[in-house]
Amino acid sequence: MRINGQKFHTIWADNNKPETVMVIDQNKLPFDFSITKLETFNDAFEAIKTMLVRGAPLIGVTAAYGLYLAINAKNNDDGLNEFIAEKCDLMKTARPTAVNLAFAVDAMFNALSDVQSVDIARKIAFEKASVLKQTEIDFCDKIGDHGLALIEAISKKKNGECVNILTHCNAGWLACIDWGTATAPIYKAHQKGINVHVWVDETRPRNQGSKLTAFELLQEGVPHTVIADNTGGHLMQHGLVDLVIVGSDRTTRTGDVCNKIGTYLKALAAHDNNVPFYAALPSSSIDFSISNGLNEIPIEERHPDEVKYIEGKGGKVQVCPDGSPIANYGFDVTPARLVSGLITERGICAANEKSILDLFPFD
Amino acid sequence: MRINGQKFHTIWADNNKPETVMVIDQNKLPFDFSITKLETFNDAFEAIKTMLVRGAPLIGVTAAYGLYLAINAKNNDDGLNEFIAEKCDLMKTARPTAVNLAFAVDAMFNALSDVQSVDIARKIAFEKASVLKQTEIDFCDKIGDHGLALIEAISKKKNGECVNILTHCNAGWLACIDWGTATAPIYKAHQKGINVHVWVDETRPRNQGSKLTAFELLQEGVPHTVIADNTGGHLMQHGLVDLVIVGSDRTTRTGDVCNKIGTYLKALAAHDNNVPFYAALPSSSIDFSISNGLNEIPIEERHPDEVKYIEGKGGKVQVCPDGSPIANYGFDVTPARLVSGLITERGICAANEKSILDLFPFD
Repeated sequence: MRINGQKFHTIWADNNKPETVMVIDQNKLPFDFSITKLETFNDAFEAIKTMLVRGAPLIGVTAAYGLYLAINAKNNDDGLNEFIAEKCDLMKTARPTAVNLAFAVDAMFNALSDVQSVDIARKIAFEKASVLKQTEIDFCDKIGDHGLALIEAISKKKNGECVNILTHCNAGWLACIDWGTATAPIYKAHQKGINVHVWVDETRPRNQGSKLTAFELLQEGVPHTVIADNTGGHLMQHGLVDLVIVGSDRTTRTGDVCNKIGTYLKALAAHDNNVPFYAALPSSSIDFSISNGLNEIPIEERHPDEVKYIEGKGGKVQVCPDGSPIANYGFDVTPARLVSGLITERGICAANEKSILDLFPFD
Repeated sequence: MRINGQKFHTIWADNNKPETVMVIDQNKLPFDFSITKLETFNDAFEAIKTMLVRGAPLIGVTAAYGLYLAINAKNNDDGLNEFIAEKCDLMKTARPTAVNLAFAVDAMFNALSDVQSVDIARKIAFEKASVLKQTEIDFCDKIGDHGLALIEAISKKKNGECVNILTHCNAGWLACIDWGTATAPIYKAHQKGINVHVWVDETRPRNQGSKLTAFELLQEGVPHTVIADNTGGHLMQHGLVDLVIVGSDRTTRTGDVCNKIGTYLKALAAHDNNVPFYAALPSSSIDFSISNGLNEIPIEERHPDEVKYIEGKGGKVQVCPDGSPIANYGFDVTPARLVSGLITERGICAANEKSILDLFPFD
């Protein structure tokens, strides 16, 4: 999508210098647009850990390029398979919740299984990372098409009146490579001339909504309004939300949706007010190995300073007194019973095991 | 309650100079403890409007003292009743949602009806304001006793294990004169040696939770943890909340509870996880004239800058891009069906018309 009118992906290899991978520094948005070079495994690992890149699909692709960078730097074939296995294990520890990270790392590991030489491994790793990247773009594109149908139907029902969509956090193109997951249907609708407006939850503590989603929508010219996270319920009570679309960091085979902390509260409000609540996600976010999101998905606890201080244009301010303990959970789980459906690259399905496995049978 | 070990009320008249009313500047807490003098009607009006004082009970008492200050400054008896009526009408416009403001102003107006001279009016106004103040203290004290029984029962059921209470915004003593509404039962439990811990919602956009409630609890030595507003649902899903207590800016005769924006979301989560959800409020917060909170309570819309910027120690930072529109609703309404009960000065009642009118029959 566009920044200052120019098309970007969130990650790309330098064409002339493929040992350098470029990413947009998302910790600096929306106030500074800055591109950072990843030149080593460690650069990629730290970029994920410090959330310079974030968003489940982008984390996966960055991890893949990070493994390529590790192999690229190796200058002999000694212990190559052990080296790859070690780096894969380490990369998986960068963040705990999003399953795409493990998915991408496993895909890289499998592609590189029993590779004999660094030269071949280097080539395979780069190609596989590029395929993973392109796959994420294609999946988001398709998610957009399937979700567009939902928005079109509401628009029709409202006789072309504005369709109000609420989203939480950033499941936008910045979280992906292009299009986004939750935002893809919105961008497609906007491009098609459908009258849409987006309520953007600011998404404390890191404000990915007010900083990233608002920035994206501004850059694409999509009408939107930023709100405090506390606001969505009130809006739904007053008929001001027609549809909720969020992303997902991990979805169980039974349709429980793990996403940014606070998503569950919006799902409850949507349910209480008969507002359709959809999660948009590529199948790389589905963890087919688990059935109970509440019990089985590890919820990342992040540093208390993310709550104690707020960063923005103008620096950093403290909003809690010294001495007050702080807890900072990164995600929560919305039980499948509150989810109207999952928008995937293969279409929309109900949030239950049968529907999910019908769409994604184990081939 | 205590600040730096010394007992304070949030508002008091200077004993030696009753034409000066002192208040704690709540816009500066928790980082600066500063006392401000209100010397005119306009000082009081502006203190309410700019939220230098805030919280439904404190707003009411400040309005009462503000009317006293208006009368105190009048130096003749000309048009006295019209003058009082005018000032009463004006004072009611300072903030729209809390009914205590209208309640206190009406009480002042009635006490001053047909008064003949400024000298007498001055005396009546000061005494009435002081009575209103003392009444709020007594009511909070009694709310504390009634709510304490709830906490004691949970503590007993948990064999003395820590009782985890979640609260939203600041319905603490800073919102009142002393004790608080939602916090009164907590302070009483803590003083009685019951093992309690409070989850403090930071309460964007103004962070009254992380700035005021956390400060209060710290000063009283009550164990607590500050969390982002998005967090409460996750905690309840994992059994980490035993009880929710919030305040109320206006409660209908049918038990709908209007309180700080975001309260409704916590009520939904409490309901979904079988966590008892109580609103603590003096009867001055009950609006007996209305039955439908969602349709009949005006919801204050505040300045977008409260969302766009965040103030704290270190100044003010911007967290939305320029150009993104912002909506800033101050309150929401929790329907009575989600409220386990109302903790009032006369005891705890169910959130329905019959129970409320049984406790508060029209005398």
